[in-house]
Amino acid sequence: MNTVSLIKKKRDGKALSDDEIKFLIDEYTKKAIPDYQFSSFLMASFLNGLNKKETSALTKAMLYSGTVIDLSKIPGKKVDKHSTGGVGDKTSLILAPIVAAAGINVPMISGRGLGHSGGTLDKLETIPGFKTNLSLTNYKKVLKKCGAVLIGQTKNIAPADKLIYALRDVTATVESIPLITGSIMSKKLAEGIDGLVLDVKTGSGAFMKTLKDAKELASSLINTAKSFNKDVIAFITDMNQPLGNYVGNWLEVYETIKVLQGEKVEDLNEVTLNLSGAMIYLAGKAKSLKEGYQISEELISDGKAFDKFLEMVELQNGNTFYLKNPDKYPQAKYSHSIQATKNGYLEKVDNYIIGMSALELGAGRKTKEDKIDPTAGIIFNKKIGDRIKKGEEIVKLFTNKERKLEEVSESVYSALSFSSKKVNKLKLIKSVIK
Amino acid sequence: MNTVSLIKKKRDGKALSDDEIKFLIDEYTKKAIPDYQFSSFLMASFLNGLNKKETSALTKAMLYSGTVIDLSKIPGKKVDKHSTGGVGDKTSLILAPIVAAAGINVPMISGRGLGHSGGTLDKLETIPGFKTNLSLTNYKKVLKKCGAVLIGQTKNIAPADKLIYALRDVTATVESIPLITGSIMSKKLAEGIDGLVLDVKTGSGAFMKTLKDAKELASSLINTAKSFNKDVIAFITDMNQPLGNYVGNWLEVYETIKVLQGEKVEDLNEVTLNLSGAMIYLAGKAKSLKEGYQISEELISDGKAFDKFLEMVELQNGNTFYLKNPDKYPQAKYSHSIQATKNGYLEKVDNYIIGMSALELGAGRKTKEDKIDPTAGIIFNKKIGDRIKKGEEIVKLFTNKERKLEEVSESVYSALSFSSKKVNKLKLIKSVIK
Repeated sequence: MNTVSLIKKKRDGKALSDDEIKFLIDEYTKKAIPDYQFSSFLMASFLNGLNKKETSALTKAMLYSGTVIDLSKIPGKKVDKHSTGGVGDKTSLILAPIVAAAGINVPMISGRGLGHSGGTLDKLETIPGFKTNLSLTNYKKVLKKCGAVLIGQTKNIAPADKLIYALRDVTATVESIPLITGSIMSKKLAEGIDGLVLDVKTGSGAFMKTLKDAKELASSLINTAKSFNKDVIAFITDMNQPLGNYVGNWLEVYETIKVLQGEKVEDLNEVTLNLSGAMIYLAGKAKSLKEGYQISEELISDGKAFDKFLEMVELQNGNTFYLKNPDKYPQAKYSHSIQATKNGYLEKVDNYIIGMSALELGAGRKTKEDKIDPTAGIIFNKKIGDRIKKGEEIVKLFTNKERKLEEVSESVYSALSFSSKKVNKLKLIKSVIK
Repeated sequence: MNTVSLIKKKRDGKALSDDEIKFLIDEYTKKAIPDYQFSSFLMASFLNGLNKKETSALTKAMLYSGTVIDLSKIPGKKVDKHSTGGVGDKTSLILAPIVAAAGINVPMISGRGLGHSGGTLDKLETIPGFKTNLSLTNYKKVLKKCGAVLIGQTKNIAPADKLIYALRDVTATVESIPLITGSIMSKKLAEGIDGLVLDVKTGSGAFMKTLKDAKELASSLINTAKSFNKDVIAFITDMNQPLGNYVGNWLEVYETIKVLQGEKVEDLNEVTLNLSGAMIYLAGKAKSLKEGYQISEELISDGKAFDKFLEMVELQNGNTFYLKNPDKYPQAKYSHSIQATKNGYLEKVDNYIIGMSALELGAGRKTKEDKIDPTAGIIFNKKIGDRIKKGEEIVKLFTNKERKLEEVSESVYSALSFSSKKVNKLKLIKSVIK
């Protein structure tokens, strides 16, 4: 096969065969195709698209560029959840123990924060001792023992994705639904799962800004999962404001503990229990999504989910002292409260700015080398549609970088819009696609 | 300026400003933008196009990546011709001396053979001693002395084009009208000309296979030339069969001599004298294209054009012995005649195959390192529409590679179609665009 002819074929809007896509991915991963040819192929794919069959072939080639974990020796169904990322999204931390407590294996391989969006690994690492870089042998051991494990991507998982993602980032070919699909699904399928629940976020704090794009991505992910004979359900959920009230790494673990201990955080509970319910349903332990939701509620109220969380943390070398005594966790040195200047309703939030503000306070990285500050972040007390009284605290910022407080405070304030008239609350779950 | 944002802009179908295009070309030429980003930009430009203004800015940036020759100290108009390339196209060799004999400067910077298409430099170098790599000082000296000079591209002329062309070749971004325009015009404008006659070829032996593409390229070239205040005329001419009867390097010089000595080769004369006539017209030495054509005819019949050819060859260090005694030039060792197997009419020629066959016989290069065989090539005796008698010679092949003869002979034969019914001759000049 000839690389230039294959680029030409995609350039001219024709579909590539499975073998042709495999050739491009395999040779690029081996560095037998240079970056400059692959980026030309990426731009042609970006502009002319890849059809369902091509997207599935792309995913397959990326998946088999590395290890596909074999979990067949561990009895029971293996189900995971993937979220496209957002602000305050700590659902993984809550649902992994819930679903494991329901007797289902949850073999999660997660990521780190990216821009305005937080990362599960960064949150878990605020727990002293917690190890996210387990070997595959230990990953399987933890999974077998407690039913849940949460680690980072290893070098052997979809190495093609690492290479391609790095190239997409510098060649303006990131926002392509087939390319995003290949990237997400190659990593998720490598986990050796039977079923997958997708949480595609939409809104100002999501990568997919419009509902249309979110639905398109959800369909593409579902098609691809089905082409690998995986059970799959996608939720499209709102990301126009933080999910729950806490944004920042330890702050989100803190809220996780509260929810697992039975505290009700309306929006966070609704999204999380819908996702965990769907996982339980996919694993065959509930007859309906609704029943899955109810089982999730019970596993929280009888304390089994929180116990499972502690068990998983211990198995991954984490110290559970702060999980049992969350209020003893050290606080950030500086905090600042933003209060309402008049009565009204919270009308709109630029959630991207909220996410970026948390990053500025220390909760995220600007360069790969930056260190995360576990205590930095934002408590966001109000939801769109909430009535607000003059002088009431809307947002509280936490940081160890005093000089950042003023600037970030201004930018957070600029991200909020108020109305004197009543404002409707946002619908959280916009669509469920099977 | 940020490279990724500029690629994104073009990817999203927006027009780039002159400064943005200049930034991309300048930085790429300096290697401050890596190949993988530039190829992504090239593919985005290929698929989303560049408008007139962008094409002109691209040309300008490529032009000023190197030396723009200043011919202002040489009195009189400077006019050149550019052809998009074809099979048997030796018009440059004939028209340069004609136009110079009319008292006009013809500062030609030409290219080498590319695939099926021949190259003026390769043809001239079959003349013993002829130097195509003159310094710019000597280039000006020859031009000033005799009014015509024919050299190869120097390192200093449009270096951006060399880099970009090499990248386009391996990233499937060659056949783009704005990118072709930038490549052609940046080199031609660097010659320091006042006017330019374009010969855009169309048909099976041309790079532009369809009349529509040829017209589009002609318009783009004209627009760009005009944006630099150059006088310009474009001819769209047929390339569905070889131009003239000789294909191959010395063979084409041989036919050039014959035409300059007054022999009539119908199609070759028609195209060449139209082009030279237009050059004379653009330089203000004829009141119309028709008068330019007539002047060209006279300069041949009174021997002045041939004398000018000899003068130019001598000034470029060439030995004129074979030009004066063309039948004494060594012949290829092997030849093979293809004869008609029945009566009929020549209906169609796959002219790309004819060009590639000449290359196989030794008249072109498969790799950069290949040496040209001056004597290899094809004499093509018939034109589409010609009546052919059984046993008559249609084509004669010449080569020094005996083992190639059979294979090439079969492929040349496969390129010819015959009809028992009368076939119309092809219109040679399809369009004249000012």
